[in-house]
Amino acid sequence: MTLGDPAGIGPEIITAAWRTLRDSGPAFVVIGDAACLEAAGAPAQRLSRAAGAEAAFGAALPVIDLPLPQRATPGAPSPLAGPSIVRWIEAAVSLALAGDIGAVVTAPIAKASLYESGFAFPGHTEFVGELTRNAPTPGARGPVMMLTAQDLRVALVTIHEPLARVPHLLTQERIALSGRVLAEALRRDFGIERPRIAVAGLNPHAGESGAIGDEEARIVAPAVATLRAEGIDVRGPLPADSLFHAAARVTYDAALCLYHDQALIPVKMLDFWGGVNVTLGLPIVRTSPDHGTAFDIAGKGLARPDSLIAALRLAAEIAERRRATALA
Amino acid sequence: MTLGDPAGIGPEIITAAWRTLRDSGPAFVVIGDAACLEAAGAPAQRLSRAAGAEAAFGAALPVIDLPLPQRATPGAPSPLAGPSIVRWIEAAVSLALAGDIGAVVTAPIAKASLYESGFAFPGHTEFVGELTRNAPTPGARGPVMMLTAQDLRVALVTIHEPLARVPHLLTQERIALSGRVLAEALRRDFGIERPRIAVAGLNPHAGESGAIGDEEARIVAPAVATLRAEGIDVRGPLPADSLFHAAARVTYDAALCLYHDQALIPVKMLDFWGGVNVTLGLPIVRTSPDHGTAFDIAGKGLARPDSLIAALRLAAEIAERRRATALA
Repeated sequence: MTLGDPAGIGPEIITAAWRTLRDSGPAFVVIGDAACLEAAGAPAQRLSRAAGAEAAFGAALPVIDLPLPQRATPGAPSPLAGPSIVRWIEAAVSLALAGDIGAVVTAPIAKASLYESGFAFPGHTEFVGELTRNAPTPGARGPVMMLTAQDLRVALVTIHEPLARVPHLLTQERIALSGRVLAEALRRDFGIERPRIAVAGLNPHAGESGAIGDEEARIVAPAVATLRAEGIDVRGPLPADSLFHAAARVTYDAALCLYHDQALIPVKMLDFWGGVNVTLGLPIVRTSPDHGTAFDIAGKGLARPDSLIAALRLAAEIAERRRATALA
Repeated sequence: MTLGDPAGIGPEIITAAWRTLRDSGPAFVVIGDAACLEAAGAPAQRLSRAAGAEAAFGAALPVIDLPLPQRATPGAPSPLAGPSIVRWIEAAVSLALAGDIGAVVTAPIAKASLYESGFAFPGHTEFVGELTRNAPTPGARGPVMMLTAQDLRVALVTIHEPLARVPHLLTQERIALSGRVLAEALRRDFGIERPRIAVAGLNPHAGESGAIGDEEARIVAPAVATLRAEGIDVRGPLPADSLFHAAARVTYDAALCLYHDQALIPVKMLDFWGGVNVTLGLPIVRTSPDHGTAFDIAGKGLARPDSLIAALRLAAEIAERRRATALA
């Protein structure tokens, strides 16, 4: 687990997650600033390698200590922390690529602080994609962002893009690749033998047979046809407004959404506190909570660890499933 | 109540709504083809004027009979019905403008059939707006579409537009007018003395301070400032994905959404069967169910009247509130 922005709610929710999971697991080791976790109330145990973390986990919060140049203040993000935040992510990904840890769970970062350090990625998803680019992965390569909340899984074709750019970014190839990565991840990481995927339309009523926009006919439907020709059980484009109520959700294993809010509105309605972000199509397992740094409440004891705990559990499940498959 | 497309589920859900409401009310009269309702199992009573409808309602379904040129077949829409469908809407609006009926509730129409009759409107909302254009109305004039579902009310700045057009259609004036119509309707039609309005952003995270799109700063925020200067309690632009969970919904009386699916995804998740569409800012009261003609299940006895019944009840409530205010 990376510490994320040390001025955000990361240190306190990591500490809370450790208290919840110390007996049951899954065990984790934090890559970050140990003093920052101690300030949040955690009994940190400094380790030089990940190997000892599982044994230590019941008694203390294991930390691979890569200290900040300056003490962090909750609620007051500083660009001085930027290089450390980036280094923690790089270190965690390296450990995962080396097989020393089973998965990476990232605590929230704030892009504004990182841009000053020259960090040029829209977020963790793209950065972790870049860091793992040269490692081999079976099947189609992501990163594709998935979010899970209760009985809903959604994957996104575009993520942090201005809405006006979305129609221009959508291509048959991009949608088909996202669908392919999603189908493979549902099999490999979620154990669904024959996953069913529902693809959302872009326009109201999925374009209403061309009366309200042509992207469905021109881009989405051909991508769906491509995926079907590959043997994937996929339907769409379907009207997005009718795709997320309870009776609709039981008809698919994951929805493929074309833009951020189309996916995030349903996720946050279903489970505002416990949603999990999973990066699909990588050689390593990576999850995170689906919320931000919440600087406004950092250090006040108000932040809920639900989403982080769910992210840790899901990361452990996926890692275990990949391990079992590799051994089989 | 207009009959809507006679080949859709209108006749059967109107008949079912009459059975549910015949004892309790609200009473209604159908403007449409009486034979079509009889074919759906309703004991129709033909009336020449709306005045007798309330007295007849307990024993029979009152109908002002404006017959189709040709018998309708459930599930097989015909452009021959187009002129009648349009005429029924015009007749209902005329009766409402004359004060002969308290509200208009419209059953679903299918635009494809109507376009052949030269019907040039995206839907009921715009057509009823046009039909009532010359009648005086207090305050800001719509039409603005609102949808209600459980504890959520959402109003839309743009409705049936291709998503690619939405960023170009948004202006400060358009958002401010929609907000003004919404605020007045919440007071006048919903009895909320000091309505609280939350305005959604367009981009992911409402633009994240300009990092993901500039429409929030350039268009939405100035419109919100204009409305605040007029004394309206309005906040925004707010991230759309965090606007619709239960804890967020209690903080406002209505959300103002910028495009169709931003509003309709939450509505249909909360209440897929019982959502109601209300047209705000008109001299007359108009509601409708929030679903379509459902030709695929028409005549099979599968259609649920929940949304239509909710639309009838809400229309009666709003009409009663306007009447009480006018008398006060």
